[in-house]
Amino acid sequence: MAVKPYTSVPEQVVSLGKGVRMQVLIGPEEAPHFLMRRFVIEPGGSMPKHTNQVEHEQFVLQGRARIGIGDKVYEVKPGDVVFIPAGVVHWYENVGEEPFVFLCMVPKAEDTITVVDAKE
Amino acid sequence: MAVKPYTSVPEQVVSLGKGVRMQVLIGPEEAPHFLMRRFVIEPGGSMPKHTNQVEHEQFVLQGRARIGIGDKVYEVKPGDVVFIPAGVVHWYENVGEEPFVFLCMVPKAEDTITVVDAKE
Repeated sequence: MAVKPYTSVPEQVVSLGKGVRMQVLIGPEEAPHFLMRRFVIEPGGSMPKHTNQVEHEQFVLQGRARIGIGDKVYEVKPGDVVFIPAGVVHWYENVGEEPFVFLCMVPKAEDTITVVDAKE
Repeated sequence: MAVKPYTSVPEQVVSLGKGVRMQVLIGPEEAPHFLMRRFVIEPGGSMPKHTNQVEHEQFVLQGRARIGIGDKVYEVKPGDVVFIPAGVVHWYENVGEEPFVFLCMVPKAEDTITVVDAKE
């Protein structure tokens, strides 16, 4: 691929979350070093507290959310840039009335997701 | 940094281009593996034919452009995903009436830009 619309990529349900789906826009078969994914969290949706073994570089495209990173909580909006270091506990909650949409880039590396607890 | 608006990052003029500026949203001091940059090409602006030693993973945020990759030319729009392999000749021309804005992620690695010719 050289150019494609994000709408051409199939969506996957992210079963760890509530109302979360994901598209792998540039995947491991193509990317030499890092992957591009697009996430959608529906209104009322969330991702529980968890850790990854890889860092996340994110860019918010649409909507509003509360994101916990370590012991801090951030309210994010379109145009915000988010960096989540490898191994740091993080979680997401859509706090708006529209889908919360963001790009999430990760290195092409092994990753294990560990849920820290079930967020109420 | 954990969260910041893209507007908080200083812009740099990209002297290789015409009407092109760039922000390093997540830079080498912070990123373990890859960098996130945001480019703006003003209406009438362009980047000449060039190569990089690193691949580009891009996501179009605003505007319309013609992008040459190798011997092909693509018209791109918001939501389009662009992959430019390392070493492949590429160029950009804003063909719209608004700024052409895109994210461009590159691996954290040495890069030399080589201009192939001056595009008319």
